[in-house]
Amino acid sequence: MCPSNETPGSEGELIRLFKDLFESDSPPADLILGIGDDAAVFEPGADPETRFVVTTDMLVEDVHFRRNIHSFYDIGWRTAAANLSDVAAMGALPRWGVATIAVPSNVTTHDIMEFARGIRDAMSEHGAWVIGGDLTRSTDKISISMTLIGETTIRVLTRSGAQLGDVIAVTGHLGASGAGLALLEAGDTKVSEEIGDAVVGKHLRPDARVLAGQVFANSEGIHAMMDISDGLGIDLGRLCLASRVGARVFEELIPVSDEVLKVAEALGRDHLDFVNSGEDFELLVTGDRKAVESAARILANESPGLLVSIVGEIIDAPFGINLARVDGSVINPSQLGWDHFRRSEGPGE
Amino acid sequence: MCPSNETPGSEGELIRLFKDLFESDSPPADLILGIGDDAAVFEPGADPETRFVVTTDMLVEDVHFRRNIHSFYDIGWRTAAANLSDVAAMGALPRWGVATIAVPSNVTTHDIMEFARGIRDAMSEHGAWVIGGDLTRSTDKISISMTLIGETTIRVLTRSGAQLGDVIAVTGHLGASGAGLALLEAGDTKVSEEIGDAVVGKHLRPDARVLAGQVFANSEGIHAMMDISDGLGIDLGRLCLASRVGARVFEELIPVSDEVLKVAEALGRDHLDFVNSGEDFELLVTGDRKAVESAARILANESPGLLVSIVGEIIDAPFGINLARVDGSVINPSQLGWDHFRRSEGPGE
Repeated sequence: MCPSNETPGSEGELIRLFKDLFESDSPPADLILGIGDDAAVFEPGADPETRFVVTTDMLVEDVHFRRNIHSFYDIGWRTAAANLSDVAAMGALPRWGVATIAVPSNVTTHDIMEFARGIRDAMSEHGAWVIGGDLTRSTDKISISMTLIGETTIRVLTRSGAQLGDVIAVTGHLGASGAGLALLEAGDTKVSEEIGDAVVGKHLRPDARVLAGQVFANSEGIHAMMDISDGLGIDLGRLCLASRVGARVFEELIPVSDEVLKVAEALGRDHLDFVNSGEDFELLVTGDRKAVESAARILANESPGLLVSIVGEIIDAPFGINLARVDGSVINPSQLGWDHFRRSEGPGE
Repeated sequence: MCPSNETPGSEGELIRLFKDLFESDSPPADLILGIGDDAAVFEPGADPETRFVVTTDMLVEDVHFRRNIHSFYDIGWRTAAANLSDVAAMGALPRWGVATIAVPSNVTTHDIMEFARGIRDAMSEHGAWVIGGDLTRSTDKISISMTLIGETTIRVLTRSGAQLGDVIAVTGHLGASGAGLALLEAGDTKVSEEIGDAVVGKHLRPDARVLAGQVFANSEGIHAMMDISDGLGIDLGRLCLASRVGARVFEELIPVSDEVLKVAEALGRDHLDFVNSGEDFELLVTGDRKAVESAARILANESPGLLVSIVGEIIDAPFGINLARVDGSVINPSQLGWDHFRRSEGPGE
């Protein structure tokens, strides 16, 4: 597949092109994992016990956030959360972050400091530290980029290790961030304040599953892990593609909170739209049923209230996903997730 | 100094605000150097011999580059060069890079791959490796961010160590990048093709002084180092501020090539404008005269043709800079460089 003069192709195609370009020579011996997973991994030669994971994310105004919906503090928090979640998804501990922001002239010093405070607070939750950055002006929209370095002394858990017979599990509940965004966009209160606050809070202050990521990485029978940043359908599709397997998911097993169901009803939407609208930043893992159940017990102990739900199984249908809906129908897979699920515009990976 | 609701203040003021915000709690023990230098430095506890330096830079279309002047390959190269130069300025070896780019719909896959190729080629020159990134769409302009991690087992050389009596030295020649940009902007050939190619080449394919940075960091009597990314005046001002000293620079000692003088003449410009237009990515060091001369000899050996020029001295005039011009006049300093020199718009640090 050659670069063409057309509009950028699918993310998958581009990742292949980037891998071809950047990994054509022989990589350094201390590079453990390059392009294509939640984060890259390197292992300094002098200390083979410590591995570093590196992830980066870009957010652009009116693509990933909107100033009439998100405060500068929210934008900072969500920038950090997206990066923290990627490090969590490798089973590593987030340590060092740098952030860049380009701002047009209508952004004040106060705005910039609120943005920085949002990043700092989200990082602090996990003991991670901002060590540098760059601030520049832009002619029009705000754009933001952040890079986060994590550290681990245990194995890193990639998205490519899923095996036939694995169960598929997710942490927490799915769809709250999407439901929260839909409510914010709808602009008026269609549900009770309590319900609204619950889902909007999940959208504005997502928390990365750092502890859960480490518990899974420490559990021998867990084979693959990634974070759900673009929705269960798209991200499970990516995991299947990387692992060269298929998946079957059962609608009634997908953990969706009552609040999300009520928002879906109030807005006349299918709650699965929210499940696949992304940015829940929960973890998606596959592994032996026993290993998943054991990790779930450890997590229930260490992080009371944190659910781990088995939602399906890995099957021998390369790259395909079936969703068995409650009404008995089966939605057929596209190669990279449910078409029904796929958003036309989505945040970067 | 409190955040205000006004337009962003000076870079110096903002860096102080960021330091207050991000360094108010007690920093992790393995953080060696936080916000404010060319790069941050951390030292993993398990291996106190190895230190990592981290730098990040953002580039925005029509602020830092223009598509009618810079090809996508150029943009990629220059993105990498800015980061490589910051790592060089700490005396470290560039190792691992991640890059993000947000592109509007008129950017093709071919463009993106050219950008990536530019980054890869500039990184390859120094054995550095791209290990990840993020690609997303923007509504209007291109914005780019890159983070580079370097590694060192020797001391890192910051901008805050300059001492009274130090000489001030720079690598290479200054002003070629600015002269090259001015020629590109002028749009037609006002000088011979040979001269034009020389300065335009310096603008489009700047090279970071990685080897020189390591030689200086290895030389005991060198006290401070940074790269010249915004011009000698502004960057020497920053070094003086960080070191709480002043500086005197002699115009006739500033290394300016014949090509730059000829471009200045052809365009009716003062060649010092080019010296201070930045992006030469040369190194600025201060230290004992003997140490500078000895490092210069080592460099002349290891990197034939690489000049090291003593241009002035560190004096006891806190934060002030004097430029003694050839005509006998002395330009008075502003606090952060020559006003005569300062650009109204400049790339981030």
